[in-house]
Amino acid sequence: MIVVMRPGANQAQVAHVSESLERHGYVVKPIFGVEKTIVCAVGGEEHKQYDFLEQLRSFDGVEDVLLITKPYKFVARETVPGRSVVDVGGVKVGGDEVVMMAGPCTVESEEQTMVTAKAVAEAGAQILRGGAYKPSTSPYSFQGMGVPGLEILREAGRRYGLKVVTEVMDVRKVELVSAYADILQVGARNMQNYDLLREVGLTKTPVLLKRGMTATYNELLLAAEYIATGGNENIMLCERGIRTFESYTRNTLDVGAVPALKGLSHLPVVLDPSQGTGRRDLVEPLSLAGIAAGADALIVEVHPNPDEALKDGPQSLTIDGFVGMMPALRRVAEAVGRSMAPSRVGV
Amino acid sequence: MIVVMRPGANQAQVAHVSESLERHGYVVKPIFGVEKTIVCAVGGEEHKQYDFLEQLRSFDGVEDVLLITKPYKFVARETVPGRSVVDVGGVKVGGDEVVMMAGPCTVESEEQTMVTAKAVAEAGAQILRGGAYKPSTSPYSFQGMGVPGLEILREAGRRYGLKVVTEVMDVRKVELVSAYADILQVGARNMQNYDLLREVGLTKTPVLLKRGMTATYNELLLAAEYIATGGNENIMLCERGIRTFESYTRNTLDVGAVPALKGLSHLPVVLDPSQGTGRRDLVEPLSLAGIAAGADALIVEVHPNPDEALKDGPQSLTIDGFVGMMPALRRVAEAVGRSMAPSRVGV
Amino acid sequence: MIVVMRPGANQAQVAHVSESLERHGYVVKPIFGVEKTIVCAVGGEEHKQYDFLEQLRSFDGVEDVLLITKPYKFVARETVPGRSVVDVGGVKVGGDEVVMMAGPCTVESEEQTMVTAKAVAEAGAQILRGGAYKPSTSPYSFQGMGVPGLEILREAGRRYGLKVVTEVMDVRKVELVSAYADILQVGARNMQNYDLLREVGLTKTPVLLKRGMTATYNELLLAAEYIATGGNENIMLCERGIRTFESYTRNTLDVGAVPALKGLSHLPVVLDPSQGTGRRDLVEPLSLAGIAAGADALIVEVHPNPDEALKDGPQSLTIDGFVGMMPALRRVAEAVGRSMAPSRVGV
Amino acid sequence: MIVVMRPGANQAQVAHVSESLERHGYVVKPIFGVEKTIVCAVGGEEHKQYDFLEQLRSFDGVEDVLLITKPYKFVARETVPGRSVVDVGGVKVGGDEVVMMAGPCTVESEEQTMVTAKAVAEAGAQILRGGAYKPSTSPYSFQGMGVPGLEILREAGRRYGLKVVTEVMDVRKVELVSAYADILQVGARNMQNYDLLREVGLTKTPVLLKRGMTATYNELLLAAEYIATGGNENIMLCERGIRTFESYTRNTLDVGAVPALKGLSHLPVVLDPSQGTGRRDLVEPLSLAGIAAGADALIVEVHPNPDEALKDGPQSLTIDGFVGMMPALRRVAEAVGRSMAPSRVGV
Repeated sequence: MIVVMRPGANQAQVAHVSESLERHGYVVKPIFGVEKTIVCAVGGEEHKQYDFLEQLRSFDGVEDVLLITKPYKFVARETVPGRSVVDVGGVKVGGDEVVMMAGPCTVESEEQTMVTAKAVAEAGAQILRGGAYKPSTSPYSFQGMGVPGLEILREAGRRYGLKVVTEVMDVRKVELVSAYADILQVGARNMQNYDLLREVGLTKTPVLLKRGMTATYNELLLAAEYIATGGNENIMLCERGIRTFESYTRNTLDVGAVPALKGLSHLPVVLDPSQGTGRRDLVEPLSLAGIAAGADALIVEVHPNPDEALKDGPQSLTIDGFVGMMPALRRVAEAVGRSMAPSRVGV
Repeated sequence: MIVVMRPGANQAQVAHVSESLERHGYVVKPIFGVEKTIVCAVGGEEHKQYDFLEQLRSFDGVEDVLLITKPYKFVARETVPGRSVVDVGGVKVGGDEVVMMAGPCTVESEEQTMVTAKAVAEAGAQILRGGAYKPSTSPYSFQGMGVPGLEILREAGRRYGLKVVTEVMDVRKVELVSAYADILQVGARNMQNYDLLREVGLTKTPVLLKRGMTATYNELLLAAEYIATGGNENIMLCERGIRTFESYTRNTLDVGAVPALKGLSHLPVVLDPSQGTGRRDLVEPLSLAGIAAGADALIVEVHPNPDEALKDGPQSLTIDGFVGMMPALRRVAEAVGRSMAPSRVGV
Repeated sequence: MIVVMRPGANQAQVAHVSESLERHGYVVKPIFGVEKTIVCAVGGEEHKQYDFLEQLRSFDGVEDVLLITKPYKFVARETVPGRSVVDVGGVKVGGDEVVMMAGPCTVESEEQTMVTAKAVAEAGAQILRGGAYKPSTSPYSFQGMGVPGLEILREAGRRYGLKVVTEVMDVRKVELVSAYADILQVGARNMQNYDLLREVGLTKTPVLLKRGMTATYNELLLAAEYIATGGNENIMLCERGIRTFESYTRNTLDVGAVPALKGLSHLPVVLDPSQGTGRRDLVEPLSLAGIAAGADALIVEVHPNPDEALKDGPQSLTIDGFVGMMPALRRVAEAVGRSMAPSRVGV
Repeated sequence: MIVVMRPGANQAQVAHVSESLERHGYVVKPIFGVEKTIVCAVGGEEHKQYDFLEQLRSFDGVEDVLLITKPYKFVARETVPGRSVVDVGGVKVGGDEVVMMAGPCTVESEEQTMVTAKAVAEAGAQILRGGAYKPSTSPYSFQGMGVPGLEILREAGRRYGLKVVTEVMDVRKVELVSAYADILQVGARNMQNYDLLREVGLTKTPVLLKRGMTATYNELLLAAEYIATGGNENIMLCERGIRTFESYTRNTLDVGAVPALKGLSHLPVVLDPSQGTGRRDLVEPLSLAGIAAGADALIVEVHPNPDEALKDGPQSLTIDGFVGMMPALRRVAEAVGRSMAPSRVGV
């Protein structure tokens, strides 16, 4: 931690800062410059001292406080040699293979889900996505089928050899959703719902943690740290688009988050080009881009008839669209030294 | 609803769109231009048709879909003649009087809370703020005192004649917190935690709904609509700073949100210059600005010794700072035709 | 300057950094922590070493480089005792008096300008605004009247005792515009047009420097530093709204920029609520807010018939609207210890 | 154009709007709904009526005005069958081949430039980048070598068979820079410097137009329209990172802009992963991503010794870094059906 004192800060103020740092376990060396004094402090457990850092900022004579270590520990790249692989019932996310997660935005009916599940499984997807509880901006919108939706998902997964990822929004339903899903999705709107993070941290179910619309990498990693400190280290980070001034796309997909997060953390990184753009015509080019940039998995929305989708039709691929883009995805994966699961016609 | 067809959209596509609109209760008139066809649709209940709008966007031949009415109903200005006043146990928010809510960011001890409560009450505050459950970016930070914190708040309120506002984060604690608080605060990070919104909507306790860091006015009003459709119309909207590219301040306080939200909704609007800037030196000028712009209440952080605050010291006013700015606030309130509660020395 | 070395940086890397800093005039003290080494460097002329700082970032073993002093000098608050007052031909911007600048967005005709100039002068404005060269997003839009527009402005100013502010966009026209205007406006889109900044820096004409749509305070102050290093210190900073995700308003007016910039710099700060919001209904509340927050001047758009305005009608006040808000502005100015020029009926 | 009237707008107001539209060449059909009236107008030249649209917004009774056609014409995809190819002295940008533009951020010396030019030419680059005039945030930073820099660039291009791209900032230097460069770069900070756009529009030299830090696709395309209406249609659009709340990277590279802009316009699209991220470690993954997403060219910064670079060292690849990533780029280009120029060892 480095404390920059204001020009003209006096001896007593420097001493007050120094003593306070020492009480918090730091070794302190002040440096007296012509214009300013800097107090350097090393050795403390900085990632546990966010509050103290904030407090220091308001000490008399203090101009700025700078952290020099990362505020997270469990999820930091340095903590683990190599990279983490999350094992989803045998499907490995974070290894050589790029994993496809695909399915409808929302479970609307048994038929819609089964048709989609079969098609994406045949094309090479290994994980079925689908919402049973939906976070809707409007209270007048469809909120999801709930338990019957979960049952359809589980049955579709069983029938076509797919693992299942679905969102949990309510702390009271973590146990329920865990009973049906192979991966618990924490949505972008709940990335800083700390009670929910703690609750999924108490399970052992793999978690797909989506980046908030306006969350920094730091905040995303701290959200992951909440889950990890609870005891669940099976975490996948997911970039799904951030909010910017551009309104042509629903969100701006931050493809650079893929290599950036892989540089900061050992956790696997997933990319969501459907939510990330909100436009069907951009899903294929950004899926290709995501794999080229190093994504460990993609999660894409597919619907047998997007015109009739209850949610997010405009960003859903048709089944033909999904099947059609898979060969190019495979070629790009191979071009960057990765592989993808083969298609499984007749699954 | 207006549907803009792509150049070259054919008759069948226009007909498909028109029929679908008619099935949803709209009266439809297509207009055939040289370059483009537009399908105008009036009479449907647009605020209930967000999902349908999304669906329409993905119809063949459709270029864009434009809503022409607001997506919320209960909270829209037109719904209520005049403005809503929220009655917090006798303190009226939204009337002529500008109400001050003040107190520590976090309840840290009985003494800290009592000292602050007494001082702000004497200076003219009518509502005591303080956190018992704190949303902390880091899992290593102080998470609040919980129930003992709630007890201290209630006792401080009782002793100094203040109503109490405190945050609830966990759906399972809404009932508990309601038992202690006069106002339930839904924090910025939970503005789109829909289960929480529904749960506070089932109570009758007034709600202070904070705007998410990156929420549009529309989204804030839809979040309020969630609460209102649950049956609780005692809602105050709160602008507390948005996230922008500027990092000198913690957030950028959108003072314009005050008149803008008052133009869109009949609900009272509260401004939080402490969270909104994260800097003590900006709290007074932006408190003055907020009142000048028409805020119905301010919520500010005050701490007897910000250097020792467990949270948010840098943005907390000292007691002297709070007391010192009250006369100027009163003068500005009067300059714009409002009033403020008198100071109550010896409370 | 503080250089944070990566964990595991070796002796040679630390020595390389240290020597390089010494060569640039710094006194260097490395601090060896358990995890990381920090190299503290004091005494150099940091504001001249932006390039070097950038270069240091790419040295082997370097994790981060932190500036501890401000990158600007002339415009920094510390450089001048008290505050700067810019004298615009006798009208003082930055003193006790809050100055009103008002007029049409664009000069469209002699009549429109004269009518507006007379009205705003009578209501108490001291400076006439109006564009003769307009930065238009579309090449098909009106680009301004040019020299005839400048002539109308000068005549209107002369006739009604107003100083004139108008925008200069083209380096080749700085001398020309200076011949007509009392204040040269550098628009938001040109805030980082460094050739233009240098050119206006060579004149002695007061400059109204508008903050770029996405410029940080730092960047705005560095743009001012360009002008000041050229020799022209008659600079007024102007907040005119920043670009955010919110689209209800054309821009988000950062009212907090007023006190923030006054804390960082001795230069006067002007607020533009017309451009800042793009909505007539928000101009009055944000004018009040700006004065309450400490603005030294406001610049507002006024048009005798906004329906017929060639540009920016929706954000222009009518003459009645302008005249009508002046008494409240005066009351708020007095409430915060400022004054405003009296109305001059029959000017 | 569609004009949405406010609820309660009266007959006279609707008539006033309708007549005004008719005077501007529109065929008008008002639709009277229960709540609102909509005035549909077709047939006018909307892209020339930005100003009129703005004006309409302020008519009494008008709630909103919606454009239904694009505001640009020359650069719109529909205007040209197929895609445009810009011919840079024989190097085709926008065809099957993905073109590499590479070189130092800034020309610092003959040796630095020659070494870099030779290396990138051998590795397969076809265009040499390098700045002779630099837009620097600080007036104390290096501003470029000027004419001697241009001479070095031209000589390096001649010697190693490379075309040259370099930035022009000052309208007075467009002719000068054109005499040395094969491509004129208009930088992000000058994207809305309309005098400069007009001036480069008067030449026939190909233009690399960089997206402003906070420019929408619409605004970028309108800037291109300025150049095209001047008579120069040799325009390449360049995404180079936008400004967001994330500060880990210098900018957020909007990879989705590549397919989005190719959907909106027939012009070739170039991606700049160096400026776009500001971090050397992200240049390779985002170069791969850019090609996968359909970029017609990449522009990357390469320096023989980034530690000694006068500018932007941290984002410059070393020569080894550049040479090392080329095979993977080629493989990805082929995976998406494109090709790249072969390496030319011994150039």
